[in-house]
Amino acid sequence: MRIIDSGLKDVDADSSVTIIMPSNLYGCTLAKNVFVGPFVEIQKKVTIGARTKIQSHSFICELVEIGEDCFIGHGVMFINDVFSSGGPSGGDSSKWKKTSIGNKVSIGSNATMMPVNVCDNVVIGAGSVVTKDITEPGVYAGNPARKLRDL
Amino acid sequence: MRIIDSGLKDVDADSSVTIIMPSNLYGCTLAKNVFVGPFVEIQKKVTIGARTKIQSHSFICELVEIGEDCFIGHGVMFINDVFSSGGPSGGDSSKWKKTSIGNKVSIGSNATMMPVNVCDNVVIGAGSVVTKDITEPGVYAGNPARKLRDL
Amino acid sequence: MRIIDSGLKDVDADSSVTIIMPSNLYGCTLAKNVFVGPFVEIQKKVTIGARTKIQSHSFICELVEIGEDCFIGHGVMFINDVFSSGGPSGGDSSKWKKTSIGNKVSIGSNATMMPVNVCDNVVIGAGSVVTKDITEPGVYAGNPARKLRDL
Repeated sequence: MRIIDSGLKDVDADSSVTIIMPSNLYGCTLAKNVFVGPFVEIQKKVTIGARTKIQSHSFICELVEIGEDCFIGHGVMFINDVFSSGGPSGGDSSKWKKTSIGNKVSIGSNATMMPVNVCDNVVIGAGSVVTKDITEPGVYAGNPARKLRDL
Repeated sequence: MRIIDSGLKDVDADSSVTIIMPSNLYGCTLAKNVFVGPFVEIQKKVTIGARTKIQSHSFICELVEIGEDCFIGHGVMFINDVFSSGGPSGGDSSKWKKTSIGNKVSIGSNATMMPVNVCDNVVIGAGSVVTKDITEPGVYAGNPARKLRDL
Repeated sequence: MRIIDSGLKDVDADSSVTIIMPSNLYGCTLAKNVFVGPFVEIQKKVTIGARTKIQSHSFICELVEIGEDCFIGHGVMFINDVFSSGGPSGGDSSKWKKTSIGNKVSIGSNATMMPVNVCDNVVIGAGSVVTKDITEPGVYAGNPARKLRDL
């Protein structure tokens, strides 16, 4: 077996950033005052905006951008591969899709994020599955997530 | 970066308690014969009753009380902040809400628990999102969780 | 407290297998070129077929068999105990049920797998809760998961 230790590799972050270990971060960029809880994986090229908190057990994949003052709850999973050809695209990243999360977006625990765009000032309920872009502020929840009300 | 190792800090538990590492427990109280699986976080002031098992990948936040002889499955997330003012309340714990889980409550894997009261003798199905108090024994499931049948 | 370190114990795998640590694997069999991400638990007697990838944060319990060329997403939870007598069966494994996953099955992140049989060539959407056997190829999603379309 090839056994590889996770950890922090090529993480671009200054002294204002806090990371709880064990976590597995590589090739990502964390702005000022970002917090990352334990048991988190953040893949390469991800960018996280200032003051955003990534809580424990979350997974943030390549091609995700998260804005400032966001709260990513516990056990939130982001996705870039929608199995568009009937299965994983493997190394073919040309088939992956982007996720863009605006500023002041709060995502509840155990939510699942398909590759979407989410505008500023959005709350996503815990346990939701977000399958479509969210283009206006408000509170969204359910599987698939739908707008419940204005903020 | 400020890198902080997780682990066991100020955990009140006797020699009958088993904890699989890595886990992150601090300031919590675990009664006799509690079991905690790996990749678990339990926050301060949480109390876990005798013989209750907390399985891998679960997150138990401040203001949660769990009774005796419970089974908390894998990847179960508890919540104390419902973003009532449109986003996380941050350090303002006066906005957080309590969760109380009775005795002999079994919560299936990947369930999401909003801050609620759950009475004794309840089974919650895997993948459920529990949004309201459960006041009578039975089997509950779905998003949002509804009663399926008596035990 | 009895504190037990997780890790790799009695894992049957050759040099083509990659495992990212920390993970907790014991008594399982991983065929050639299997990949296991970080924060994964795989219990005893589990078998994983050649070239299958198990992504981060997933939990694979006893009595699960997974075929070849599968993709198990992040935060996927398998279940063997359906609380059939109103609660966990504890050490009584005679009450546990099997899961069999065929070849070329892709399971999206945060999916929850009750003990079922899934045939070859199936895609299961992220966040799904699979409660019944899947006997024909296709794309399935939802809670409970239903067929959306052919592959």
